[in-house]
Amino acid sequence: MTTHFPFSAETYRARRTQFINFVKSGKYLFLSNDEVAYNYTDNVFPYRQDSSFLYYFGLDFPGIYGIIDADAGTTTLFADDIDINMVIWTGPMPSMKSLAEKVGIDMVLKVEAFEKSVSSDIHFLPPYRAVHSILLSKMLGKDVHSITESASKTMIKAIIAQRSIKSAEELVLMNEATTISETMHLAVMKATKAGLKEYELVALASKIAREHGTVWSFPPIMTINGQTLHNHGHHNELTEDRILLFDGGCELPSGYAGDLTRAYPVSGKFTNKQKEVYEIVLGAQKTAIDLIKPGEAYLNCHLASAHYIFDGLKQLGITKGDSNEAVQVGAHALFFPHGLGHMIGLDVHDLENLGEDNVGYDETFSRSKQFGLRSLRMAKKLETGHVVTVEPGIYFIPELIALWKDEQKFSEFINYQTLESYLDFGGIRIEDDYAVVAGGSKKLGDVNLPKEIGDVESVMSM
Amino acid sequence: MTTHFPFSAETYRARRTQFINFVKSGKYLFLSNDEVAYNYTDNVFPYRQDSSFLYYFGLDFPGIYGIIDADAGTTTLFADDIDINMVIWTGPMPSMKSLAEKVGIDMVLKVEAFEKSVSSDIHFLPPYRAVHSILLSKMLGKDVHSITESASKTMIKAIIAQRSIKSAEELVLMNEATTISETMHLAVMKATKAGLKEYELVALASKIAREHGTVWSFPPIMTINGQTLHNHGHHNELTEDRILLFDGGCELPSGYAGDLTRAYPVSGKFTNKQKEVYEIVLGAQKTAIDLIKPGEAYLNCHLASAHYIFDGLKQLGITKGDSNEAVQVGAHALFFPHGLGHMIGLDVHDLENLGEDNVGYDETFSRSKQFGLRSLRMAKKLETGHVVTVEPGIYFIPELIALWKDEQKFSEFINYQTLESYLDFGGIRIEDDYAVVAGGSKKLGDVNLPKEIGDVESVMSM
Repeated sequence: MTTHFPFSAETYRARRTQFINFVKSGKYLFLSNDEVAYNYTDNVFPYRQDSSFLYYFGLDFPGIYGIIDADAGTTTLFADDIDINMVIWTGPMPSMKSLAEKVGIDMVLKVEAFEKSVSSDIHFLPPYRAVHSILLSKMLGKDVHSITESASKTMIKAIIAQRSIKSAEELVLMNEATTISETMHLAVMKATKAGLKEYELVALASKIAREHGTVWSFPPIMTINGQTLHNHGHHNELTEDRILLFDGGCELPSGYAGDLTRAYPVSGKFTNKQKEVYEIVLGAQKTAIDLIKPGEAYLNCHLASAHYIFDGLKQLGITKGDSNEAVQVGAHALFFPHGLGHMIGLDVHDLENLGEDNVGYDETFSRSKQFGLRSLRMAKKLETGHVVTVEPGIYFIPELIALWKDEQKFSEFINYQTLESYLDFGGIRIEDDYAVVAGGSKKLGDVNLPKEIGDVESVMSM
Repeated sequence: MTTHFPFSAETYRARRTQFINFVKSGKYLFLSNDEVAYNYTDNVFPYRQDSSFLYYFGLDFPGIYGIIDADAGTTTLFADDIDINMVIWTGPMPSMKSLAEKVGIDMVLKVEAFEKSVSSDIHFLPPYRAVHSILLSKMLGKDVHSITESASKTMIKAIIAQRSIKSAEELVLMNEATTISETMHLAVMKATKAGLKEYELVALASKIAREHGTVWSFPPIMTINGQTLHNHGHHNELTEDRILLFDGGCELPSGYAGDLTRAYPVSGKFTNKQKEVYEIVLGAQKTAIDLIKPGEAYLNCHLASAHYIFDGLKQLGITKGDSNEAVQVGAHALFFPHGLGHMIGLDVHDLENLGEDNVGYDETFSRSKQFGLRSLRMAKKLETGHVVTVEPGIYFIPELIALWKDEQKFSEFINYQTLESYLDFGGIRIEDDYAVVAGGSKKLGDVNLPKEIGDVESVMSM
């Protein structure tokens, strides 16, 4: 149970007031996350509070519930004090009353009063844990299998509007999360060498995360097969000829996440071929970063990266033809099949549980159905206070190439012949986190984690 | 997705045959565990397969289902091959047919055939994850809130009977899990010193676990407040005057768990007071270990430890009066409020999801209602092939002592006056894992992890 609060009671109170001002009327339900059974009820995964609960209620433990009543302008916390019989297991605990004060809440009721306080028209968020589906179904008398359909659009909209814009206080924490994440990456970069197993590098990065009192913000990707985008196995041995791709970051006790990617040769020295592809990815990232400013659509940043990648591969003889046409039809997606990035905050894909389209798209921007572009998590205009990842990549995915080649798909834009010699290349992605500020962007993180080839080689030779 | 199998197809087939011979008739449902959302659907906790699924079906990934038909003597696996569109995310995957062969299953059907194959009288296990409650409710047309009540007693009994007895092959793996756990403990013992934060030692042990390709088998306890039994916070700084208590172990990729505890002074040198209490705990553990053999009730091992502890504390003037009477009424539980241990295997509390009373008690032994003894997870007779933890402890819990003192509870057995000077002592527990073998027991683990005071001090001074 956390008794440390990253923000003042005033901050939490102001957040709830802002929420009330946005929604204007109605009652809004906030459920704390429960413990989740690992292999039996009493053996649980590390506890993770729901991010919106953290944001508005600041309390980092299970079994508690919050209701914001916008009509009355009040907030109620439902929470029971620890029973003395539990003291031998949990140690002494502050009272719920005193904890509520820390987050600016005056009204604390017992949990037994909670269900009675929930009316059938209460607003709630779409559940992402099954236990919440069951609880909501029971309280609201709705079918457990379709409960998500009744989630409140008003509540979703209000929370996205508010949590998307990071305050100065939040940016300090996000900078800290990124700095620790950079420290993890720097250590892995220095330690990388042939003969190690991928999981030994995960062990090293884990140790650094934990030494800073943090945990992984998502299951890390640490692989010599970067061409497999979500590769969470870590059992390969590092070999000289491969590129190691490490995509990972830490989560602070306050919940804020870092998310960085680097990719470099296990050998410590880029071959010419590796250099050529790496420089294209790096250029694509810089091109996108240069565009970031309030008012710019993130879609444009993505497309600029896509263009850069297509043009770069043209220099290598891998692609051909008109770049505009090629990117428009999605020919680049054979090599760059994912989106440029996503918002980041209390969630590494910030607010994703409220619906990716609600977070990244709006009346102006709707999601494409095109392979590649359809995976772009955010297209809408950037605003001051947004924090986004910028993470283009180039991958040579043998199975996908074989599939497209069979169909001679986009053969006017792709030299399948030249591609043959890249089938064992792997994948490269470069990712940093940027806050949108007046007139441009600011990189998060205080560590200068190398990404220029010379700098990477220099760090790896230490 | 695991493509490594700890046992042969023959072994998995033999296990299912043994199960069929036990239950004789009926259909039995085995559900794989799903991924669990951390803070949104796509950000998941590390995957953990259900242990019974692992035991009978050996496949370590979600979205698959097994049915053992005892009437027909057949096993069916319901599993879909990976779609080519998923290949860019997951990489190439072996076919389900080929994976099923590895675990001796011939019949593989598509998942769409699964629901149709589930009749309302199918046997199933009590769900410990909410998503299984919802699935079972939907398939069987039963109320989601009371689905556990319909779980199959026959299936529970058969699985407990079978999984409780570890084969020679399983013991090799359990020995490996314990050996790695010992290595983690030895490193922490060597690194312990004042000024470190508890989480820095967790980081160290995590690193060693991961370097061996393993994970924590349960959330580790690493605390200078060992008197709080389930203390999962790691934010204290180690100080010279405290005892560090580390209770933790690793879980192999095959699922088998280790679970060890050591407690020693942060200073590296026991004070006389610490020595006196430590020797009692160590003696209580040895007394219990000496009793372990096939046919002995684990309850007797527990009570022997309780006696030893009560008698030992008498030497220190903390307890008084007749030991038999004191242990019978539970006066020792002020200091030793938990049970001696539990079975361990694929779960660190083995089979606990099937009901602790079903695992540890039977027609002969029923659970006590007495404080302390009621927390004993297992009382029944030991059998060859059982593996149990042996983990007595002595704790000075200020809140509990204050509560009992107020009531003058068991004042004929407890010198509350003498206890005053122990209120800041903390807690000590010593735990090892033992296999029950013909005529006695065998300690698991190949590392000589010290527990004698001289040996501990010697390792800590290195």
